[in-house]
Amino acid sequence: MIKAGIIGSTGYAGAEIVRILARHPEVEIVWYGSRSYIDQKFSSIYGNMFQIADAKCLDDNMDQLTAQADVIFTATPQGLCASLITEDVLSKVKVIDLSADFRIKDVSVYEQWYKIKHAAPSFIKEAVYGLCEINREQVKGARLVANPGCYTTCSILSAYPLVKEGLIDPDTLIFDAKSGTSGAGRSAKTANLFCEVNENIKAYGVATHRHTPEIEEQLGYAAGRKLTVSFTPHLVPMNRGILVTAYASLKKGVTQEQVGAAYEKYYKDEYFIRLLDEGVWPETRWVEGSNFVDVNYKVDPRTGRVIMMGALDNLVKGAAGQAVQNMNLMFGLDEKTGIDFVPVFP
Amino acid sequence: MIKAGIIGSTGYAGAEIVRILARHPEVEIVWYGSRSYIDQKFSSIYGNMFQIADAKCLDDNMDQLTAQADVIFTATPQGLCASLITEDVLSKVKVIDLSADFRIKDVSVYEQWYKIKHAAPSFIKEAVYGLCEINREQVKGARLVANPGCYTTCSILSAYPLVKEGLIDPDTLIFDAKSGTSGAGRSAKTANLFCEVNENIKAYGVATHRHTPEIEEQLGYAAGRKLTVSFTPHLVPMNRGILVTAYASLKKGVTQEQVGAAYEKYYKDEYFIRLLDEGVWPETRWVEGSNFVDVNYKVDPRTGRVIMMGALDNLVKGAAGQAVQNMNLMFGLDEKTGIDFVPVFP
Amino acid sequence: MIKAGIIGSTGYAGAEIVRILARHPEVEIVWYGSRSYIDQKFSSIYGNMFQIADAKCLDDNMDQLTAQADVIFTATPQGLCASLITEDVLSKVKVIDLSADFRIKDVSVYEQWYKIKHAAPSFIKEAVYGLCEINREQVKGARLVANPGCYTTCSILSAYPLVKEGLIDPDTLIFDAKSGTSGAGRSAKTANLFCEVNENIKAYGVATHRHTPEIEEQLGYAAGRKLTVSFTPHLVPMNRGILVTAYASLKKGVTQEQVGAAYEKYYKDEYFIRLLDEGVWPETRWVEGSNFVDVNYKVDPRTGRVIMMGALDNLVKGAAGQAVQNMNLMFGLDEKTGIDFVPVFP
Amino acid sequence: MIKAGIIGSTGYAGAEIVRILARHPEVEIVWYGSRSYIDQKFSSIYGNMFQIADAKCLDDNMDQLTAQADVIFTATPQGLCASLITEDVLSKVKVIDLSADFRIKDVSVYEQWYKIKHAAPSFIKEAVYGLCEINREQVKGARLVANPGCYTTCSILSAYPLVKEGLIDPDTLIFDAKSGTSGAGRSAKTANLFCEVNENIKAYGVATHRHTPEIEEQLGYAAGRKLTVSFTPHLVPMNRGILVTAYASLKKGVTQEQVGAAYEKYYKDEYFIRLLDEGVWPETRWVEGSNFVDVNYKVDPRTGRVIMMGALDNLVKGAAGQAVQNMNLMFGLDEKTGIDFVPVFP
Repeated sequence: MIKAGIIGSTGYAGAEIVRILARHPEVEIVWYGSRSYIDQKFSSIYGNMFQIADAKCLDDNMDQLTAQADVIFTATPQGLCASLITEDVLSKVKVIDLSADFRIKDVSVYEQWYKIKHAAPSFIKEAVYGLCEINREQVKGARLVANPGCYTTCSILSAYPLVKEGLIDPDTLIFDAKSGTSGAGRSAKTANLFCEVNENIKAYGVATHRHTPEIEEQLGYAAGRKLTVSFTPHLVPMNRGILVTAYASLKKGVTQEQVGAAYEKYYKDEYFIRLLDEGVWPETRWVEGSNFVDVNYKVDPRTGRVIMMGALDNLVKGAAGQAVQNMNLMFGLDEKTGIDFVPVFP
Repeated sequence: MIKAGIIGSTGYAGAEIVRILARHPEVEIVWYGSRSYIDQKFSSIYGNMFQIADAKCLDDNMDQLTAQADVIFTATPQGLCASLITEDVLSKVKVIDLSADFRIKDVSVYEQWYKIKHAAPSFIKEAVYGLCEINREQVKGARLVANPGCYTTCSILSAYPLVKEGLIDPDTLIFDAKSGTSGAGRSAKTANLFCEVNENIKAYGVATHRHTPEIEEQLGYAAGRKLTVSFTPHLVPMNRGILVTAYASLKKGVTQEQVGAAYEKYYKDEYFIRLLDEGVWPETRWVEGSNFVDVNYKVDPRTGRVIMMGALDNLVKGAAGQAVQNMNLMFGLDEKTGIDFVPVFP
Repeated sequence: MIKAGIIGSTGYAGAEIVRILARHPEVEIVWYGSRSYIDQKFSSIYGNMFQIADAKCLDDNMDQLTAQADVIFTATPQGLCASLITEDVLSKVKVIDLSADFRIKDVSVYEQWYKIKHAAPSFIKEAVYGLCEINREQVKGARLVANPGCYTTCSILSAYPLVKEGLIDPDTLIFDAKSGTSGAGRSAKTANLFCEVNENIKAYGVATHRHTPEIEEQLGYAAGRKLTVSFTPHLVPMNRGILVTAYASLKKGVTQEQVGAAYEKYYKDEYFIRLLDEGVWPETRWVEGSNFVDVNYKVDPRTGRVIMMGALDNLVKGAAGQAVQNMNLMFGLDEKTGIDFVPVFP
Repeated sequence: MIKAGIIGSTGYAGAEIVRILARHPEVEIVWYGSRSYIDQKFSSIYGNMFQIADAKCLDDNMDQLTAQADVIFTATPQGLCASLITEDVLSKVKVIDLSADFRIKDVSVYEQWYKIKHAAPSFIKEAVYGLCEINREQVKGARLVANPGCYTTCSILSAYPLVKEGLIDPDTLIFDAKSGTSGAGRSAKTANLFCEVNENIKAYGVATHRHTPEIEEQLGYAAGRKLTVSFTPHLVPMNRGILVTAYASLKKGVTQEQVGAAYEKYYKDEYFIRLLDEGVWPETRWVEGSNFVDVNYKVDPRTGRVIMMGALDNLVKGAAGQAVQNMNLMFGLDEKTGIDFVPVFP
């Protein structure tokens, strides 16, 4: 059995890792980390886990944790994981970081968008960007994986084949994203109260959201050059789910068939990416509770644009599910082990 | 024009008073009190009021406030209003208190259920319990009105005619109440986050909720004797609305006709109480945004019980609307002035 | 592998059976029955099942179905299952009926509450009422199981220990139930449109709901005599979940300890019934997506009543999950096989 | 008093006209038209109107209606209004059509997008497109007003100043729109059931939605030339509200100041258009229940684009409120009469 420790286990992403690992056939959770709830039963914080995860939450203690665990998940605010990583730690355990600390290769871009100094820049190069469908082989050998952002995963996978194949003008890319509220985390803020979110839709972080440089860097690798995109996230009154509607200008003469062939090429063998039937658009309800990303596209001859769309569950493929998918790869397990959930509807 | 000051204007109930008074033809708001948002524009806290209520929020200052206002609404936590009331204050302004400070005549009952010492017990006797449909005449002459609780208003009005007419055994009364989340207020608590409330229903304060003694006292006056009731509030994933489903054993031989006659007797001339057609049950959507209470009942011969039901908007008839209704009565205006809203649906 | 056929697979309960069986290690679905969607891919109706259940829906054909299947689930309107059951059918397959056709032993009670003539009354006696925790041994040997109603399961399990042990006066039982909207089914009715359900709570079937006689019959067996209860269902703006708040008068002198001992006696070894810690009340969010029923109770000395509460997911323990639990028992499998889901939150 | 008749009064838009006119100081409703609910009390369909609008619904009868009414609102499916309009009708009453029949000047564009033959093309030229803030003077003299679509109103007003002033390249315009579910109407469709809409976001009508040519025509007038836009509507799990996020490439050298000056020029004197403070983005909750459109913009120097945003209540400014605003103009009343609602929050 793989022994797993979770730092930040009582946030929504951390708790989703707990929920998934509680039924993972090859994993045992040995450490429920939570600075906010030290010594309290995990199931007293998350009542769904009653009689399933009744162990007590523990304060951070890297010595004990690295001694007990084979893998550590950090589901913590930006900066925390970077402050923990040392050669000693990585020599003992594998680390999967759900924060942004190791996602961006250019430390100055990180520091500019996140407004914090990076505490362990020397490990950025080693870290593998854990978008499994794109970097699968590198993940397998990694000691340190930077688990991608929720919006980023959905945005990149929606557009990747067309950027990679050079069928669109990448500088025309616009990502209009809509997310459920669990993406905002579990800290007590007035803006996230039920009555503030319910019966409302709003944009936030317009032209300034931190997932922007992450999208640009990764799609830049696909394009083979730097690119700049518009990215606008919106908050939707629902618990889970991200829908990305993306727009780009097609290069001259590109046909619906070429576009379709590009998606087929990259996704037809990917279990967790479901390329939908023609005319069927992704909806968040169809992926809720699962690790699937549903994707589709349409060429609009009136405007010369292609509309690309993706949907995923922000807590699963957008966070905890992908983290476990990365863990599976890192430990040589079948990628689907313990995360092959059927989406729950309604 | 009546000059109104609001202490606690940036809570949900306070902001609803602002919203209502902004279009009240006889009132001008002269004081937006808010300890949390001193010097900030009211409309920067409540964006719906942009270009409608752009004045700045002010700290508590009773000297200035009593000099400027004719009426003060206190939409504040328990204890605050009691700490402000003096003979001097009441000689200058009328006060409508939306907290529980002056609702309960027996100060020991208040102190036992609310766990605080009452700061102005000498004014409890003078305060009028502002359930307009029952105490209309006393309200007209009052200097200090205790505005009823939201659950209380709905519970009392659902059962009042049958208690008053002695058609039920009052000790069998059970009130099972369901409320929208605005009743929980606007303070930032994890329990009230969108993801915690959405897709959930739960009970709280089981057998201990503070509205219980208020219901018991008021229905006790109607019954002419002390009585004890069960009261269970539940939190529903919606913004506004309270539905009370009440149960009681009918006295022997009481018929559906007698029950109907009792409701007709007390409610047929009440504008804000709508006694629904036979077979039509109250629903919160039909009263949302209005000052109406919808009421109905059914005798169940199988069990010998009567089921009584009431619905209201907790922020209007359950708080701000009833407060303005009380103000109208206290200032000799038509009771409906400025609060004759048509319910908003959907 | 057990071969399963589902009649009515495209209603919410039927689709939940599909979802569960799609990952059941001992079952293969051989028949997706749906009169409404004949020849359409199941996954074109339920997009969550894309690439998981892409077989086509079939019209009813009992000859073919009994030839291919080992077990048939009927998730159909009242009357349909009764019209299909014959000795020949039961000699070939086991049947688990999710409708009410075989739940009520007294056919006249069934016909009075359901307003239809029973088509197969001779099989009522044989049918086992599939509330697994109470009738486990009988279910094991059954050919025909009447799967209990969603409200019924929750109501009975909330009160069962106290009725069975004679600690309450059963004629004082009142069940105030609140349900998510999936319980209303997937047929297109104006009353179930989003804008009609959202931001609303209402009661329905007051004093007339068909789950009433089912509760009365089963609790009557526990009490050893006939009893009459009040039952009021309410519709809550959420997808899944039932919460039952039940009230009854305690027999003289009964203590909190005696009440607790009764719940312990019947539930402490039941995996799917979680008796919560003192002071923790059931909430639907903590059981969503799982087969658990969370239960708790409180003695209220002020009123002499006990408040009993239960929560379950109406589509799982209230329908499909319990149906599969029954199937597991009927085929000699571990009761938990394929239904040991961790509740999904948020 | 203006006498008003409403054809299609029991759809959501029609019922919103009823709700608004019920408190309009200069209007009396004389005709509640509804083919679906003939002879039923209006308030039996919309319980919020109990004791407010208890008249019975009537079948279509243009002779009687034109004899009794001064103004007719048609809140009906496409094609119906066109089938009713004659010179005789317009000589007797003013008509405000909430359908698309008279919005598009080029009848072939109408017939192509709506797939129906226009029944009264000769009146298209006379009809005034009732976007009050843009066509106010023409509306005042009109007999026949084509009330704009909900998405259209929001999209046009978000971008109008920049198109009119030539600050953006109009062919780069992309409108990503999000709407509450009341926009889908009240007819009983599975796709609009609570459990299908709740906890989901989806796009629909991608690259084919019928509001596209309406946006293109009106913005084309502003641009002084034909233009083509991308428009993608999404369905959000809330009752009311539309948010439009629009993107366009700025012409070279255009500054945030020039953009701001353009918005100021057209909107600073418009009561119902609220140009928000810098950095404050429109949210649907801040306009709910009101006739306001909240608008803001941001120049993004990284991409050379401007992001434009607008929010309105689809049933008020997007339908019934704007219809009454048009009526006010047509009858020489103050534009705000009876529609100066404060937005309801929460």
